[in-house]
Amino acid sequence: MAREALVDSRQEILRTAARLFQQRGYDATSMNDVAAALKLSKGGLYHHFQSKDEILFEIMNHAMEITEVRVLAPVRGILDPEDRLRALIRRHIEVVLSPADREITVMLHENHPLPPALRKRINARKKEYIHFVESLIAEVQKEGGTRPFKARVSPRAAAFALLGMINWIYQWYKPEGELQANTLVPQFTDLVFGGILA
Amino acid sequence: MAREALVDSRQEILRTAARLFQQRGYDATSMNDVAAALKLSKGGLYHHFQSKDEILFEIMNHAMEITEVRVLAPVRGILDPEDRLRALIRRHIEVVLSPADREITVMLHENHPLPPALRKRINARKKEYIHFVESLIAEVQKEGGTRPFKARVSPRAAAFALLGMINWIYQWYKPEGELQANTLVPQFTDLVFGGILA
Repeated sequence: MAREALVDSRQEILRTAARLFQQRGYDATSMNDVAAALKLSKGGLYHHFQSKDEILFEIMNHAMEITEVRVLAPVRGILDPEDRLRALIRRHIEVVLSPADREITVMLHENHPLPPALRKRINARKKEYIHFVESLIAEVQKEGGTRPFKARVSPRAAAFALLGMINWIYQWYKPEGELQANTLVPQFTDLVFGGILA
Repeated sequence: MAREALVDSRQEILRTAARLFQQRGYDATSMNDVAAALKLSKGGLYHHFQSKDEILFEIMNHAMEITEVRVLAPVRGILDPEDRLRALIRRHIEVVLSPADREITVMLHENHPLPPALRKRINARKKEYIHFVESLIAEVQKEGGTRPFKARVSPRAAAFALLGMINWIYQWYKPEGELQANTLVPQFTDLVFGGILA
């Protein structure tokens, strides 16, 4: 009981489960494994989450929450569209590279099929983010109209490209590598601005 | 025995296994499931592949083979670096969107940890591809030197960005959507050229 009381936050469960899912694969990790890693009884774990799918859903939901709080909320207040896009690129890369959040956010790319109702809710949040980026790129392209400008790249294609570039980082990133947030942010920013204003 | 004889190609096994892995998840799919889907006995399947890890490795290896044959080999012969990069972008997108190869190539992004020796071989092939793209981008930037040109985006960061954009397509692509190869190829090409020559 003492230990059960220590697991006061569902977040600790989500974080531990996310780490196990990545190390062993989602399907290969059982509810027993998650409970054992937390030194919880199986009943103690089921008190918080009814199923492994619910845990995966809550991890993904938490990842979208992190994106909302760390990326979207702070940039919404920035008036200039170019500055807003710059801040979004920087903040999104920082979330992807954050050691504290990486094990949560990388789970957004887990391919395990969630039950349709849960999948719909995650997809709705992902779509919201894509639409935000798309509108923002459209604004930047519009403002960039004073330059010799032909918008050959649509906001939608550019939004998918931007999210792909950033969300793909986890596939190649090495903590000891040359490319870190401070070198990556300006380069990806220049690439995107060069591309959408080309 | 008659049916066993029909499964004359390891490719048919790899293709069926890849489809099952995507539908159910790699860990949730057993060798029995793969054998049953192919109407093979378990022994018949083990005659071709000794383990599920070997199947996953061979799927990934086959995906890299497809990339070699459909992307790298044809573009190597193109003399002009800009044309070579254009062809690489187009061909890589076509492989990612090819209905026949998609179930194979998407497995390159499977996160299941392979045994170290097998993982090393796949990673070596992936690295070879990244280096090819990186050198090509460097050449294009060098040739582009006649324009008002500052190479703010390094070939390496640009190579990762390009691969991220293209390899991410499977996350959002819809066969009935507006963005298809014919609309996507010119936009991603413009975005990359605008970005690396910005």
